[in-house]
Formats: sequence, structure tokens, C-alpha cells
Amino acid sequence: MPTQFDPPSGTRDFLAGELEARERAFGIIRSVFARYGFEPLQTPAFERLDVLTGKYGDEGDKLIFKILRRGEHEASGEADLALRYDLTVPLARVAAAYGSQLPSPYKRYAIGPVWRADRPGKDRYREFVQCDLDTLGSASPLADAEIVCAVNDVLTELGIGEFTFLLNSRQALSGLLEAFGVPADLGPGVLITLDKLDKLPPDEVIAELATRGLSQETSHELVNVMTGPDAAKAVRAALETTNAGAAGLEDVDRLLALVSGLAPQDRVIFTPRLVRGLTYYTGLIWEVVAPAVAGSIASGGRYDQLIQTLGGPDVPATGGSLGIERILPLITGDAAQPTSTLDVAVTVMDDEYAGRAFALAAAARGGGLRASVYLGSSGKLGRQLKWASDRGALWSLIYGSAEDAAGVVTVRDMTTGDQTRVPIPELTSYLERLGSRPHP
Amino acid sequence: MPTQFDPPSGTRDFLAGELEARERAFGIIRSVFARYGFEPLQTPAFERLDVLTGKYGDEGDKLIFKILRRGEHEASGEADLALRYDLTVPLARVAAAYGSQLPSPYKRYAIGPVWRADRPGKDRYREFVQCDLDTLGSASPLADAEIVCAVNDVLTELGIGEFTFLLNSRQALSGLLEAFGVPADLGPGVLITLDKLDKLPPDEVIAELATRGLSQETSHELVNVMTGPDAAKAVRAALETTNAGAAGLEDVDRLLALVSGLAPQDRVIFTPRLVRGLTYYTGLIWEVVAPAVAGSIASGGRYDQLIQTLGGPDVPATGGSLGIERILPLITGDAAQPTSTLDVAVTVMDDEYAGRAFALAAAARGGGLRASVYLGSSGKLGRQLKWASDRGALWSLIYGSAEDAAGVVTVRDMTTGDQTRVPIPELTSYLERLGSRPHP
Repeated sequence: MPTQFDPPSGTRDFLAGELEARERAFGIIRSVFARYGFEPLQTPAFERLDVLTGKYGDEGDKLIFKILRRGEHEASGEADLALRYDLTVPLARVAAAYGSQLPSPYKRYAIGPVWRADRPGKDRYREFVQCDLDTLGSASPLADAEIVCAVNDVLTELGIGEFTFLLNSRQALSGLLEAFGVPADLGPGVLITLDKLDKLPPDEVIAELATRGLSQETSHELVNVMTGPDAAKAVRAALETTNAGAAGLEDVDRLLALVSGLAPQDRVIFTPRLVRGLTYYTGLIWEVVAPAVAGSIASGGRYDQLIQTLGGPDVPATGGSLGIERILPLITGDAAQPTSTLDVAVTVMDDEYAGRAFALAAAARGGGLRASVYLGSSGKLGRQLKWASDRGALWSLIYGSAEDAAGVVTVRDMTTGDQTRVPIPELTSYLERLGSRPHP
Repeated sequence: MPTQFDPPSGTRDFLAGELEARERAFGIIRSVFARYGFEPLQTPAFERLDVLTGKYGDEGDKLIFKILRRGEHEASGEADLALRYDLTVPLARVAAAYGSQLPSPYKRYAIGPVWRADRPGKDRYREFVQCDLDTLGSASPLADAEIVCAVNDVLTELGIGEFTFLLNSRQALSGLLEAFGVPADLGPGVLITLDKLDKLPPDEVIAELATRGLSQETSHELVNVMTGPDAAKAVRAALETTNAGAAGLEDVDRLLALVSGLAPQDRVIFTPRLVRGLTYYTGLIWEVVAPAVAGSIASGGRYDQLIQTLGGPDVPATGGSLGIERILPLITGDAAQPTSTLDVAVTVMDDEYAGRAFALAAAARGGGLRASVYLGSSGKLGRQLKWASDRGALWSLIYGSAEDAAGVVTVRDMTTGDQTRVPIPELTSYLERLGSRPHP
């Protein structure tokens, strides 16, 4: 039930714990992409409306958030700008704008929010982060393989557990249809049904193929080849009978050879039923599945005409996208732990010693520790130590008249309650030693 | 002259070099804020329209980017959402939404884009980053002083060179007007004119005060006290004659004492003419000036009623904002250097050895280096080495039939042109040694 203080429907406020976990993950992703020589690109949140419209099909167009014209034009009710719907159309625009000023090939990644006026639901947001990497200007299968390796390294370093790349090729799919004599007009529908072989029993897939107008005989043949005991071999044999199929298979095998160094051995699996979005892929296609998640957690492929279609230059292109909103919940271990806010809490027992408290906090920061003085109105030590403990502080520094007289500061270990009196001149090195100790 | 591929007016595309410099600066800022125990907050790019309207005055309201309703409501030409105009109204909403779930005091920072439909101009953008830190729930001057110290540390670590905090208090300003018997209705205008004492000669300020309706005598007295040879002392004496002035002066002196540890000695200067935005500040106010920049590069102050006015709870608050778009051009030295994309470029002299090239690149990455294989179509070594050099690679790895026969890889130092043949089993440790060498 939304209240007047909730963020708008389908959007989220990220407080420190969750935000820090997300940022840590983005940091890992950025560092892996950089290690592969991909460079970052950031484009504005909005584009001119005409840059976006007509690029996502009728259904997509309806989901674009449009921005009203301003000033005297506001009353027209017209829009001239729109929030970006993905990171690919802005990439095409940048490729057109900068042309040869960009490196060739242009290997770029982008991590940032996109906005879609979708019906909000579980794990479906109107503001969500996309995380894309793409190589523009290389037709080489090495470029496809490099994307797969980079995504593999990201998922490995994020520590999401088991995952598998499913690999196929648009040409292999064409060859498959040709090899079984599927009429051209039935092709797209047949592929959509075949893609359900991972979820439905073969009989049901055969029945659905029939409703699409495919003959009983062809439906049986197709499904039997793709689900038989030696399916991979049988599909390969069928593909070899057509030019498109053989070419697709060659691409698949080329990529499999290039990524053979990835562990475990079956990280990438040729998956003849895999279809992905039919509309713009032109070559190799892949998606990543993980046992814990329905659907894919990353996907991509070669799309040699898309950049031109979207208004960019005519360049071959291949890329991938991480389903980061699905991946983040899979991250366990250190990367997911919210951090505490503080290492050192400095109590202020008396206004007279506030300046000293500031100096103590500065000394702790100088030693690489996160430190804050108490900013509340209570002069009670117990209350201040409760604040320190609530903030997750590992140590509290106490400085009152007794410490002032003795020239020391009391360092309280918040875990054990032990207190140590440290001479002021030794505090910095004492705190530096604390700072270099592994945190509990 | 905008072309069809430019980003929308007032927005920018950030390619790798500039983006990385910005991200490095944001990284420093985040780490300093965290060291002070401030925690990050991220809110959506847009808010419900009613959350934003009426919060920024008539002029501000006109600059809000409004988002058209969707679906059947689009034709109405009405807006229901709007891009955030600043980071303070979202903070007030979050404070209202989460209430006691937030730590007390709530020390948060936020770094993110905001959008204003301002007339674009030199250094004035429609999409620009704000960088705020605020403490909600503490009335203590320690909270104000902590903000000043954190901003001081950020600017120091960013390496922007000289800068100075100008400090004043809203109460001191009230006391000043009272002490000189300025009629209440003239107060705001008089303060705006007095604030020009840093730019205009005293005579012109006196003349402007007269046009505002202030008597000749009072105008002369005020300006003489504020510009005389011992202005600070004279102003202090005048402030002490009123309750508001004395209270403001006490706040100022309290903060000066708390930040006295900052170097250099005159980092924070009591500046009686400083006015800042009159509308919502209630206590101490400050801004940071730097010799190289007109106007301020950071500013802030105490605003004890604002959060409630903006729809949040009734909490005392103090904060500051970095003028990050003005600060970034000041950063010189390492932080501003664009990085190269690559450390190691791996040539591919023959398709046969592409798998080996992938393994070599993976070994380099394992050694902490950024590495990419050549993805172009040329089989010529010269062409591939030019690509390596264009990408800023420090080393190229060459592996052809000669290397294959000898079980080595040729490592070419791209700076000197020296080539070393390294046995394959030794490559990882060889590259690790290269990776730990300081980069030129």
C-alpha cells in the first residue's frame, strides 16, 4: 500500500546497506571489464524523443517515459525528450556522433539506470540498472568470445555460485529450419515453440508445433532429433546438410574452442533450442542460466545490423548484458554484507573537550579508520556508548577530566568492553595499529 | 551548432577519459565522507510531481522537468512525475518515510545527477551532478563543524590548491541589522547589497543601500564598520550589543574553535558580509571560495526548519554541497589524467593461435594487468602493433609459428621496442612482475 512518502511506483530508495552491496558489485564488474580493455561510457538520462521512438516496437514505445515540453510549450501537452529505455540506442547515437574519434574496435561498457513504464511487480521495476558491454567494429568471433569470457569472469568474481552459458547461432537456427523443410512463414513461430523444450515435455512441444501449422511428421522429426539420446550429434549432422547450418556450427565451434580454457569444462554448452530475441541478432547468441533463478541472468550475441538501424554507423557489433537486478540477490558472502558506519566513535563528555574530540576523530581518520564524534545532546557515557554500539563502532574513545589530567585517552574495545589508557602522543600509532588489524 | 547525434541541449556524453577522472573524484569524495561516518543514500531519478512542486519557488518550479502520464492518460498532456531538481527534497521524503528506522543522527551523503530546465550555457547544464552531505537530528554546533571538516578534507584530497571557508551566521546577520537600526522591511535587500562588498568599492555599496531606502547615515555607518581597518573587531563589538548578534557570534566562535586544527591557520574566516541564500538557513552559514574560480565551490549551513517545510519530520539539520561541476576542472595532477585502456595487447598472427592468444590475455589479467587480444582483420604485425600503441599498451605479446616451435612468447616493450622471448611456463610470473612495476 503506497504511502505519500514512498518513492514512485516501481522505483526504490537505496539506504546504505543495500546501496553499498550494489556499489561493491558494480565495482567488481567495472574492474573486470577494465581488465579486458573495455572502457566506460556514460550518456544522459534522457534523449531527444525522436532518437528513441520507433526503436523498440509498438509495445516498447508505450513504455517510454516522455518529458513534457517546458515554458510556453508546456500547455501543448507535447513531449520533446524521453528517459532512456536502454543503453544500446544511446550507444548507437554516440557511435554516430563521435565516429572515427572512437577507438577501433570500440569496446565499451555502460552501467546505469534505464526507465520503462512497465507494470511494476516482483523484481520488475520502472527504474532499474542495466549493465552492458559491447564491441563495435569487429566481425571476428574473437570479439564474441571475449564478451563471453568477460561475463564469465564477472559472474565468477561476484561469487554467484553455479552458472552455465547456453550457446547457439542465428544461422544455425536458420539451417535447422531449412534442414527439416519448415516453411519460411512458420519459421519464427516454430522457433519460439522449440525454445520451450527446456520447460515442456516433448509431446506438448510437438502438439504446440501442430497448432502453429507444422505437419505432424516434421514436428515429430524435429523434436525427436533435438531430444533424442544423442541429440547434440544428431542436430550437428542435420545442420551440416545446409550452408547456413554449417556456417552457424562453425561459429559455435570456433567460440567453444576459444573459451575452452574456462573452468569448469562444461561452462559453455551448445544449445540448439536456444532462440533469444529473434529480431536483431545476426550470429552467435547466448544466455547464462543459474540453478537458483528462473530465466537468464545474462545474455547477448552478435547484432551486425542493429547499430545502423538505430541511427548509428554500419558496423559489425557483438555484446552482452548482465541482468544485474537478478544477479544481485544471488551474491552471498562478503560482497553482500552491509558494512557498519563506523570504526571509532568519539564520545564528548563535556563541551570543554569538544575540540579534543575533534582532534581525536581526525587522528583516527588519519590512521585509515572511519570516525565520528557524538553529535547528540546527552552527556551520559552510557547513552553515548549505546550510540557507538548502534553504529557498529569497534572502539570508542573517551576523554574527560580524568584523562585530561593524566594526558591520556581511554580506548574502549566495544566487543570486549576492555578499556586501555593510551598516552595522547602515542594515540595515532596506536590507532594505526588498530586500523591495520583485520576487522572482526 | 547541435547535430542530430549530439546529446540533448545542456547534457553531456562522457567518454572514457573524462568519465574516469570524474569517477576517481567521486571515489575520493565517497571515501572521505565514509571516513566521517556519513552513509550513502540513493533515491530515484524521478519523484511524484506533487513532492517537488511548490518547493523551489516560482522560478524553480518552472525549471522542473515533468514526465507525461502514460497509456490512456498520455493524451491529457498532464504530468504525474518529475525529474528530481535537487537531492534535498528526496532526503526530506526519505526522512519522512523511514523515520526512526534511520540512525539518529542521520548522517548521509548523496552523489548523483539532478535535472533543471535552465538555459544551457558555459558551465551550466541541464543534467549535472550534485554532491551533498547532511546531518539530520543534531542541533549541536559539532555537527556543523563536522560538515566543514569533511568538506575541507575532500577539497584537500582532491588537490584543488588554495581555498578558504567564509563563515557567518544568520543570527549574526539579524543582529547586525538590529544593531544599526535597519528597518525590518529593508533587511533582506540591505543584506543582498552588503554581500557585494567583496566585489564593489564601499562607495558604490553605500549608493546602492541608499536606493534601497536606507538612510545615508546608517548606510555610511554600516559600510564603514564592515570595511574599516579593524573591521572584524568593530563588527564583533556591534554584534555584542544585540541578543541575536551575540548568539550568532557565539556559534561562529564555537565553530572556529572546533576547526582550529585545520591547516592552514586561516582556512576558515569569519565573514560578516556573507549572506548565502536567505530563505531557509537558520544558523551558521558558510561557503568555500578558491582563487581560480568566480563564485563558490561549496556551500552549506544549518537549516533547522527546511526538512519539515519540505514534507519531512521536524528535525534540526545542517549540511553542505560541493559544486562538483566547478571543482572538477580545478583538479590537476594524477587524478585528472585519463588512463590508457590497456597494459598488454595480445597480437593474433594466425587464426590457428587465437586460442593461445586468449590464454595469454587471461594470464596477463590473472597478473593484475588489463589485457585484450587483437580483434581486427589484419594479419600484419605492424598494423596490430599500431593498434596496441594507440590503445596505450605498455607491452605486446606476440605468438606465431616461431614462438610455437620454441615454446616461448615474445614480449615487446612498447616504450623501448625491446623484445624478450619468455618461456610459456614462466609467462605468468613474468607478467606479474611487470604488473607490480610502477607504470611510466
